[in-house]
Amino acid sequence: MRQVLVLNGPNLGRLGSREPEIYGTVDHAALADLLAEWGSALGLEVSLRQTDEESRLIEWIHQAADAATPVILNPAAFTHYSYALRDAVADLTSRGVPLIEVHLSNPASREPFRRNSTISEVATGTIAGFGPTSYHLALQALPPV
Amino acid sequence: MRQVLVLNGPNLGRLGSREPEIYGTVDHAALADLLAEWGSALGLEVSLRQTDEESRLIEWIHQAADAATPVILNPAAFTHYSYALRDAVADLTSRGVPLIEVHLSNPASREPFRRNSTISEVATGTIAGFGPTSYHLALQALPPV
Amino acid sequence: MRQVLVLNGPNLGRLGSREPEIYGTVDHAALADLLAEWGSALGLEVSLRQTDEESRLIEWIHQAADAATPVILNPAAFTHYSYALRDAVADLTSRGVPLIEVHLSNPASREPFRRNSTISEVATGTIAGFGPTSYHLALQALPPV
Amino acid sequence: MRQVLVLNGPNLGRLGSREPEIYGTVDHAALADLLAEWGSALGLEVSLRQTDEESRLIEWIHQAADAATPVILNPAAFTHYSYALRDAVADLTSRGVPLIEVHLSNPASREPFRRNSTISEVATGTIAGFGPTSYHLALQALPPV
Amino acid sequence: MRQVLVLNGPNLGRLGSREPEIYGTVDHAALADLLAEWGSALGLEVSLRQTDEESRLIEWIHQAADAATPVILNPAAFTHYSYALRDAVADLTSRGVPLIEVHLSNPASREPFRRNSTISEVATGTIAGFGPTSYHLALQALPPV
Amino acid sequence: MRQVLVLNGPNLGRLGSREPEIYGTVDHAALADLLAEWGSALGLEVSLRQTDEESRLIEWIHQAADAATPVILNPAAFTHYSYALRDAVADLTSRGVPLIEVHLSNPASREPFRRNSTISEVATGTIAGFGPTSYHLALQALPPV
Amino acid sequence: MRQVLVLNGPNLGRLGSREPEIYGTVDHAALADLLAEWGSALGLEVSLRQTDEESRLIEWIHQAADAATPVILNPAAFTHYSYALRDAVADLTSRGVPLIEVHLSNPASREPFRRNSTISEVATGTIAGFGPTSYHLALQALPPV
Amino acid sequence: MRQVLVLNGPNLGRLGSREPEIYGTVDHAALADLLAEWGSALGLEVSLRQTDEESRLIEWIHQAADAATPVILNPAAFTHYSYALRDAVADLTSRGVPLIEVHLSNPASREPFRRNSTISEVATGTIAGFGPTSYHLALQALPPV
Amino acid sequence: MRQVLVLNGPNLGRLGSREPEIYGTVDHAALADLLAEWGSALGLEVSLRQTDEESRLIEWIHQAADAATPVILNPAAFTHYSYALRDAVADLTSRGVPLIEVHLSNPASREPFRRNSTISEVATGTIAGFGPTSYHLALQALPPV
Amino acid sequence: MRQVLVLNGPNLGRLGSREPEIYGTVDHAALADLLAEWGSALGLEVSLRQTDEESRLIEWIHQAADAATPVILNPAAFTHYSYALRDAVADLTSRGVPLIEVHLSNPASREPFRRNSTISEVATGTIAGFGPTSYHLALQALPPV
Amino acid sequence: MRQVLVLNGPNLGRLGSREPEIYGTVDHAALADLLAEWGSALGLEVSLRQTDEESRLIEWIHQAADAATPVILNPAAFTHYSYALRDAVADLTSRGVPLIEVHLSNPASREPFRRNSTISEVATGTIAGFGPTSYHLALQALPPV
Amino acid sequence: MRQVLVLNGPNLGRLGSREPEIYGTVDHAALADLLAEWGSALGLEVSLRQTDEESRLIEWIHQAADAATPVILNPAAFTHYSYALRDAVADLTSRGVPLIEVHLSNPASREPFRRNSTISEVATGTIAGFGPTSYHLALQALPPV
Repeated sequence: MRQVLVLNGPNLGRLGSREPEIYGTVDHAALADLLAEWGSALGLEVSLRQTDEESRLIEWIHQAADAATPVILNPAAFTHYSYALRDAVADLTSRGVPLIEVHLSNPASREPFRRNSTISEVATGTIAGFGPTSYHLALQALPPV
Repeated sequence: MRQVLVLNGPNLGRLGSREPEIYGTVDHAALADLLAEWGSALGLEVSLRQTDEESRLIEWIHQAADAATPVILNPAAFTHYSYALRDAVADLTSRGVPLIEVHLSNPASREPFRRNSTISEVATGTIAGFGPTSYHLALQALPPV
Repeated sequence: MRQVLVLNGPNLGRLGSREPEIYGTVDHAALADLLAEWGSALGLEVSLRQTDEESRLIEWIHQAADAATPVILNPAAFTHYSYALRDAVADLTSRGVPLIEVHLSNPASREPFRRNSTISEVATGTIAGFGPTSYHLALQALPPV
Repeated sequence: MRQVLVLNGPNLGRLGSREPEIYGTVDHAALADLLAEWGSALGLEVSLRQTDEESRLIEWIHQAADAATPVILNPAAFTHYSYALRDAVADLTSRGVPLIEVHLSNPASREPFRRNSTISEVATGTIAGFGPTSYHLALQALPPV
Repeated sequence: MRQVLVLNGPNLGRLGSREPEIYGTVDHAALADLLAEWGSALGLEVSLRQTDEESRLIEWIHQAADAATPVILNPAAFTHYSYALRDAVADLTSRGVPLIEVHLSNPASREPFRRNSTISEVATGTIAGFGPTSYHLALQALPPV
Repeated sequence: MRQVLVLNGPNLGRLGSREPEIYGTVDHAALADLLAEWGSALGLEVSLRQTDEESRLIEWIHQAADAATPVILNPAAFTHYSYALRDAVADLTSRGVPLIEVHLSNPASREPFRRNSTISEVATGTIAGFGPTSYHLALQALPPV
Repeated sequence: MRQVLVLNGPNLGRLGSREPEIYGTVDHAALADLLAEWGSALGLEVSLRQTDEESRLIEWIHQAADAATPVILNPAAFTHYSYALRDAVADLTSRGVPLIEVHLSNPASREPFRRNSTISEVATGTIAGFGPTSYHLALQALPPV
Repeated sequence: MRQVLVLNGPNLGRLGSREPEIYGTVDHAALADLLAEWGSALGLEVSLRQTDEESRLIEWIHQAADAATPVILNPAAFTHYSYALRDAVADLTSRGVPLIEVHLSNPASREPFRRNSTISEVATGTIAGFGPTSYHLALQALPPV
Repeated sequence: MRQVLVLNGPNLGRLGSREPEIYGTVDHAALADLLAEWGSALGLEVSLRQTDEESRLIEWIHQAADAATPVILNPAAFTHYSYALRDAVADLTSRGVPLIEVHLSNPASREPFRRNSTISEVATGTIAGFGPTSYHLALQALPPV
Repeated sequence: MRQVLVLNGPNLGRLGSREPEIYGTVDHAALADLLAEWGSALGLEVSLRQTDEESRLIEWIHQAADAATPVILNPAAFTHYSYALRDAVADLTSRGVPLIEVHLSNPASREPFRRNSTISEVATGTIAGFGPTSYHLALQALPPV
Repeated sequence: MRQVLVLNGPNLGRLGSREPEIYGTVDHAALADLLAEWGSALGLEVSLRQTDEESRLIEWIHQAADAATPVILNPAAFTHYSYALRDAVADLTSRGVPLIEVHLSNPASREPFRRNSTISEVATGTIAGFGPTSYHLALQALPPV
Repeated sequence: MRQVLVLNGPNLGRLGSREPEIYGTVDHAALADLLAEWGSALGLEVSLRQTDEESRLIEWIHQAADAATPVILNPAAFTHYSYALRDAVADLTSRGVPLIEVHLSNPASREPFRRNSTISEVATGTIAGFGPTSYHLALQALPPV
């Protein structure tokens, strides 16, 4: 079964209770369940990880690059300044491994600083604004092997 | 069967032959076939329209607003300057009708002027970078009635 | 009786139902009635036209320039980017024919992109923020022949 | 009879002799006469005051706020930098008292620094470019009690 | 005989009477005569078209792209914002068909907004400032087949 | 007993009734009482003055500079543009007399223009966002003689 | 006894020896003693923590959010770019838990990059420029329960 | 004997004691003596006035405009934001009365905000950086009647 | 026979071997031959000069201004910063002598710094992007005497 | 033997396989060997460390500051945003300990965001663009004790 | 007798005939005569030199630095970009030798690019806008030895 | 023996006496001796040249390009604006000949205008901040033939 890595960045462990009018009421465990279910229906083995550490995200992306595992990444606030994350993503996608950037909310309709993404330029594609469904779409967007 | 309007903006009628290294080799007729097929599988009646006219797009979005028909919109180059289109989209989405912005290519990895979207701020969500699959994902992203 | 042309730009045909908290609840037909009534009281034959097409607006301004008919223009979203409309307006006002820019809402208190008008620089004057009354004031602002 | 306060900012006492190609040849006393006449025809008791002092304008706006007197304000050069005046205006209009910003000339067609108004964002509406007629229109624009 | 398409954008139908101190006194019909004459002397069949519609210009450029007809384009005010037109031009020139951008006046010596051209980056070359002669030069600039 | 001068800039005389959702419901007289009480508890003789006049504020700061009296300054809207006030503050603090900038509200969470302070750069320190408590903290922040 | 969390960001462990002309000569242990003493006098149990890790700060703020413990945060250099920290702070303060941003030095009088704070916009208030006293003031600024 | 008005703006009454490393040790009274002496040697009756009030400066410039008295103006910090002062100066110089802008220090070698002068654009000329000698030079620079 | 001066700026002596994918393979001597030939066919005596010295270009333009000789100028990299050259060109064209700016390549499709020309604003017209043909067109663009 | 610390930032552990057309084919282990060899020849004991963690880099720089060990730092992507790292570097170099910033590639010829370095301003010097040789040069650049 | 060097930059040799509405009708020889006469009256031996070469100006400033000769410099268009000239001026003035920047016209009232001076920041002072009198004032502004 | 050209730009002939706190006390002759010595130890024949003329530097770079001689260039103030120098450097390095940009001081820690280099983008690499040692490092950085 094909492996897929879903990586969630800082503060996403707080899903469900954090500013629910923006991020919704589904918590991280429920998201994990949804991803497992969606993945299973698509023949994908989905591995969900969350961290508030930039270096941990980078490490996971390095592992994915070495294993050629496709990645779905919600970089959360790192989206707006982490060029280190971007360099890791570029390392991955320049090897032909897909990485899809997802967002729960629609960054374009929030604070001005959320308009800029360091990641989009080197990602395979971007999906934003659909709540947990953003992840479901990303799973479906993975190019077939 | 639920209606969905898929609207393509300027120059998208040229798909298949226009800068294929950016926009791919699927032409507009083939895209129509794909959309029909994808829609059918999802229980959606997909109506695909293309125009190079800003006012025509606006008119179609007005019709959708009146009929409460969800819209998938690839605004093409209008993305970057048509505030008239944006106002029409805001009219639609402020009524609670979903509109999803799609792009075949990844605007973030192209010319700087493509970084700015007048539409994203008032769209339900955005999907970019997956070629024709962007549309397929958008069909799936439509919130259930 | 003196002719006056009142031109409404994109999405203004939706008046009354479109984002009424911004644009009010008077619809376009009611605005036409008001204009006719106000014009009549001022000895003016008011001709109201609305279009979502940039080129149609330009054409009407050309006609006004040739006939030396004063114009009251609500450029709507074209305000913020249509230099083609601006060039048509400059053609008219440089002939000494008055053109008054009107807005229903107060663009200065909305999104940042609404701060910039391509039209104001070449208009006779500007009236903004009074709802339909903006048009009434503009009719009164027309310089006597 | 309904009171209206018309406030003129710095250098407007020089009307008639100051750069007449921009500001016209009507002097301040004549403007007072016009305002009295126009007000009278509209059933309004117009009180015209002029000052070069920012704090005096602020004081008058405070008085109007307390008395709920509508204000017509030509902030002159204060338009472009006086956030103290803006705060006074916001205090007034946030109480539901109307304040209309007027300009004799068309700031948009002059120096770039005249493009920015600290006042418009918190004013009820703006009228610019009609010479003394700008004031006449503002009197008519006052919402009925 | 080799075909050449000469396309004139918005407001250029007003040549001769429109701001003649900027655009000169040759009207559009006279320009057509000049172009026919110049073309004939160069062995070129020149087809001159003018429109105020962005989509019409785009359509004509699409036709030229399909027929591999060289284009001389005066985008007029579209120069400064129409990325839709730019995309059409890029479609044409990326196929190896030449398109020359011309201007009657010298945009660099006019308003600041005229400094930016969305077209130049994808055009074969640019000729500006010579009045109708700009077109004559463009005819001569066409690379031989 | 040690003297302290507390200076309030434009519109602060309106405290209590002015936009209470931003500035609170404590009025200026009540603030004076609070300051007297807080000062007394700290062994400080607090003198509170308010003015809408930039020159008055400057004069008071000059007096404080000559008497080496510490100052607590709420520059209100002058914060954002009064370089004259800044120069007076720099004259004072460059003599080693402390001046503390206070704000009732949190300027960083309001309009963009409130992000810039001409005063902070030359003040001893800044306290913002605590309502009347901002003044209490400033009294306590005064370095001992 | 009421808990208060005092969090110090990167390089603040070096207090006392690090650029003492800017940050003073009080070292981190001495600051801890001062905080304990000040807290005790105010009936507060102050817990001081320092880290150079962004994710650790975020984790501590999450804990405070869950426990509704008020926070005094000196984000140090993270002030200027860590939107991840900002998102954690927004999560906390949007729950009604106070967080006060403090700085030892006055960022406004240092390098230009220190003018921008990602934190201030979502903090309860800000205190800057008083050395260790900034923390003392913050303790006093905590709203009573 | 020819009248000359020398006007000093805010904080200049503090000359001699205010930041002497920037503004020198000559106080305002001594400057008055120097001006009287220099004027006398040049056959000029020099009237020196200082104020911290913007409106007073404006009033004096109005008087000079009416009396056609040449002005030497040190606008001090008003240089950088007072468009009201600028409008008064423009009123004067547009009547052909000379006004020379002087500065004691060299604004170009100080803080960035001192680079911009609202006055220079409408002044006859500018002299900066020579301490009190700047005034002496300005007296000599006055065009003969 | 009419004189024409063709002036080439810095690094243009390297034509033919310098980055030929941008500047082509025609070397400077061959360009001289082409110009002589083209000039002769047009009844023009073309004098071609090249220099890497800004002052030499300025001197030649001064000579042309005195002799009223039309100039064709390829300012090369001076285009982007030499205001001294611009002042010389303005001296020439303000006397009614034509100067045409030419470029071999299309600066708009290269590095961002090449978008700005100090020369265009004061030139008669501009021709760019046609290789050596740019010069041929410029010869033809010279207005008849 | 003199100690030297060589610190490599995020993603540099991937050397050799990561985008080799930019970063070369020497992997991190081989770089370690080269550094040991180069150091040995210069009488330096070189300690090479790599981390993707910002806080780890900061900790190592703190240790170097305490031990007065010179540092060669390749901050990788942290170069462009880590002000925390900058503060640590400033702590070190303000103690007179040298720190040399190195880059394998030439950041000036890559993406625009790579133009800005938060580190250069507080580093002893910078060496960029020579691949592994950048480190060799840095070793030689260390000032003698 | 004290030496003074007066240096004129590019295009100033054209005085008298070059754009006389801006630069006046006094030619360079007449300026030399005026300078000799003015210098003589002040006990100064004035040496006037003009060049269009940046390096020549730099060389003359080097000579003045070595001989401690005061300099009056009209950098003309070099004002706006020549950092090489600025570095030479800084070398001179950092040795305590005065250099006064003069301009015939008032750069602040001309094109925007003339607002920026690379020289003012390192000059002793600046005099602009008085025609040839600017030089006379500069001679008088020289500090006594 | 391998030739190397070391080129020094404007004001570098003043080394040793010019602002020694920035540029050090080694004069140009001593630098020449050092270079000869360093070169000799590396088997390189170093030719050092200095000029204040932009065109001379360009000429020397042309010669190096023709002879394929590696260049070490200290562009001094030309770094910040000379695009003509940049074009010459690009001509050289695009032929595969190395050119290393060196600076004595660290431009990043000086005035803001020194942050921008027109040269770095087209240079092989950059070495800055090590005084004369910058040149020594550059000699060592030359890639072997």
